[in-house]
Amino acid sequence: MVSEQYKAMLSGKSVIRTLSEFAAKRGEEIGYENVFDYSLGNPSVPVPQEFTDCMIEMLQNDNPMELHGYSPSLGIPSVRAKIAQSLNERFGMNYGPEHIFMASGAAGALAHAYRAVTQPGDEILTFAPYFPEYNPYVNLTGAVLKIVPADTDSFQINFEAFEEMLNEKVMAVLINSPNNPSGVVYSEETIEHLAGILREKEKEYGHDIFIISDEPYREIAFAGVKVPYVSGYYDNTISCYSYSKSLSLPGERIGYVAVNPACRDAETIVNMCGQISRGIGHNCPPSIIQLAVSRVLDKTADLSVYETNRNLLYDCLTELGFTCVKPGGTFYIFPKALEEDAGIFCQKALKYDLILVPGDTFGCPGYFRMAYCIDTEKVERSLPALRKFVKEEYGNRG
Amino acid sequence: MVSEQYKAMLSGKSVIRTLSEFAAKRGEEIGYENVFDYSLGNPSVPVPQEFTDCMIEMLQNDNPMELHGYSPSLGIPSVRAKIAQSLNERFGMNYGPEHIFMASGAAGALAHAYRAVTQPGDEILTFAPYFPEYNPYVNLTGAVLKIVPADTDSFQINFEAFEEMLNEKVMAVLINSPNNPSGVVYSEETIEHLAGILREKEKEYGHDIFIISDEPYREIAFAGVKVPYVSGYYDNTISCYSYSKSLSLPGERIGYVAVNPACRDAETIVNMCGQISRGIGHNCPPSIIQLAVSRVLDKTADLSVYETNRNLLYDCLTELGFTCVKPGGTFYIFPKALEEDAGIFCQKALKYDLILVPGDTFGCPGYFRMAYCIDTEKVERSLPALRKFVKEEYGNRG
Repeated sequence: MVSEQYKAMLSGKSVIRTLSEFAAKRGEEIGYENVFDYSLGNPSVPVPQEFTDCMIEMLQNDNPMELHGYSPSLGIPSVRAKIAQSLNERFGMNYGPEHIFMASGAAGALAHAYRAVTQPGDEILTFAPYFPEYNPYVNLTGAVLKIVPADTDSFQINFEAFEEMLNEKVMAVLINSPNNPSGVVYSEETIEHLAGILREKEKEYGHDIFIISDEPYREIAFAGVKVPYVSGYYDNTISCYSYSKSLSLPGERIGYVAVNPACRDAETIVNMCGQISRGIGHNCPPSIIQLAVSRVLDKTADLSVYETNRNLLYDCLTELGFTCVKPGGTFYIFPKALEEDAGIFCQKALKYDLILVPGDTFGCPGYFRMAYCIDTEKVERSLPALRKFVKEEYGNRG
Repeated sequence: MVSEQYKAMLSGKSVIRTLSEFAAKRGEEIGYENVFDYSLGNPSVPVPQEFTDCMIEMLQNDNPMELHGYSPSLGIPSVRAKIAQSLNERFGMNYGPEHIFMASGAAGALAHAYRAVTQPGDEILTFAPYFPEYNPYVNLTGAVLKIVPADTDSFQINFEAFEEMLNEKVMAVLINSPNNPSGVVYSEETIEHLAGILREKEKEYGHDIFIISDEPYREIAFAGVKVPYVSGYYDNTISCYSYSKSLSLPGERIGYVAVNPACRDAETIVNMCGQISRGIGHNCPPSIIQLAVSRVLDKTADLSVYETNRNLLYDCLTELGFTCVKPGGTFYIFPKALEEDAGIFCQKALKYDLILVPGDTFGCPGYFRMAYCIDTEKVERSLPALRKFVKEEYGNRG
């Protein structure tokens, strides 16, 4: 008989996907260029040319049996070594190749991290606003995801609520900075405060509490904003990285788990990832992609367009009277809706061909997300629609 | 705290891997070309040139955002459609794209199939000799893998033992033909008999029993041998395919799940695979590899070398008096050892730099596996070593 658990999931449809499908359909009627589709977080700039050149060069010159051969279950050793070295140079860490596990994007990395440090029934805490896919990601492991309410003033951490929710069953805290959907970067102060609390609670409970740091937006930070490297502040940190956004290749499924060498079980955790992999059928990201990415580790796609878009939108939104924390990175912005129910607000915006996502789906009702990984030219064309929407629906604010 | 379940797995070391590491080490002493390494099932012929050309062509000409963009969670629609069409033409099936789910190799495909049709505590039966990775693959889902003892006369199915082991908890039967490690192809008669029993038991138990058909060697069949397409004989069949062996690209992690359209829940099962994917962090095989493979679906690497090797080894082994079922496909042969304990037999062979794998690890003690996916020239050079080994250790048999 088919599994009831997975069958039941089929009825729940993602709000983001529904809106994105609406946008595509509307595009068929009026031309997709006229739909101001802020629904999906898909990179909108090309992969660096160096990546493409390097792929072609390997395909032309390398021994195909080596190029396309099995990767060891922890990843290709030379690739793991290069990633360790790059992290050490950039963030003053002390990784060896034995602390790196190659994974199929951030989703793959997280799937291993959750299983490595929890048993069924354990709790993982995360902070609103948060990426809604964390729910199936965690809950299907047998662990339980609990959401700490947002600090809506700053979208840093609501420590009061956090401390109330901490208990002996919490084995890991899942954070995502720069954050989807708020675009906010956790400050050094936030991370240090979090680390301090966790160190105390580890002593009190007599067991490790891991930070699982989901970092796909680590390289997308705007002028003047430093993204603190979380693992540098707390030993028991498992960093989960993906090249999807920084190199603009989300379909190629490449990322890694990096376990802080100062963490007691560092090497064991990496080796355990190899075992977890057998159960969930991973067996490494593709060999050729591992090799190509290892040659462009310190490159990124041209990410400047996201900053340009952020500026255009932030200026227009604040001018229109929106309450809005200025994003420090990513390609998201998360303003407060102009009425209590963000679902109704976003519904009204559809009349103006503005596709906005209600914050409810990110555990933060009353707000909405705009994913501005679209052409700047389209962002510019969307501003009059935004102004018209606000004026007609909410009166003369700007 | 780190997961005890995965930590405990670290102490169990694969016999095949241990032997392969021994071979590599011995190679450092006497030159790897002098080690007759029959341990590992790694393809030894290059990927078809068409695949390489097509990868280069896409990298040079395609829009990088489309080429490297997210694939929908069930796979790229055009790729799924082409695979369905190819299966229909070759095997007289009736698949639509909605019956195909793209997966990261056979391991990925199987990880989805197990979860789709079992709940924790359910049983999956498979037949010795069998691929030992099935143990962690299945047991980490919460279902239980049970092994039906071998029919050592033919390495078809031991139906007597099978019928004794069938019970209401059995939700799936996992088969692998052409078989690793025996090289044997299940005959039409075997598959029809199996299907007949299952149809009866479905009625008796009042629930579906699925065949999960693991088919990575489907394209490696030797002259005169037809590989029956299992799904053509039994409606409730989930076929799990990988291009690793047929196209010689095991590192690129590409394969699929094909659910027989006549199966009651066919489309639901495919959609459930998309949900399972969220829990295990898959999110599709790499986009560029999906696209490239879809353009060379009916090609294979030059697989003729495996038949040449099979002939050389089978002739030599039978001449030396080994009991041995002639492989109909794959790149494995599975003769009976010349003493009761195949472990001791294989240990003795190491003195002659022959790396053979004891059958115990495949659930079939007293036999041994040779993986002959190596250069023919090396197979030829290994024959005198094989003759010498048998003569010196077991007397004058040949």
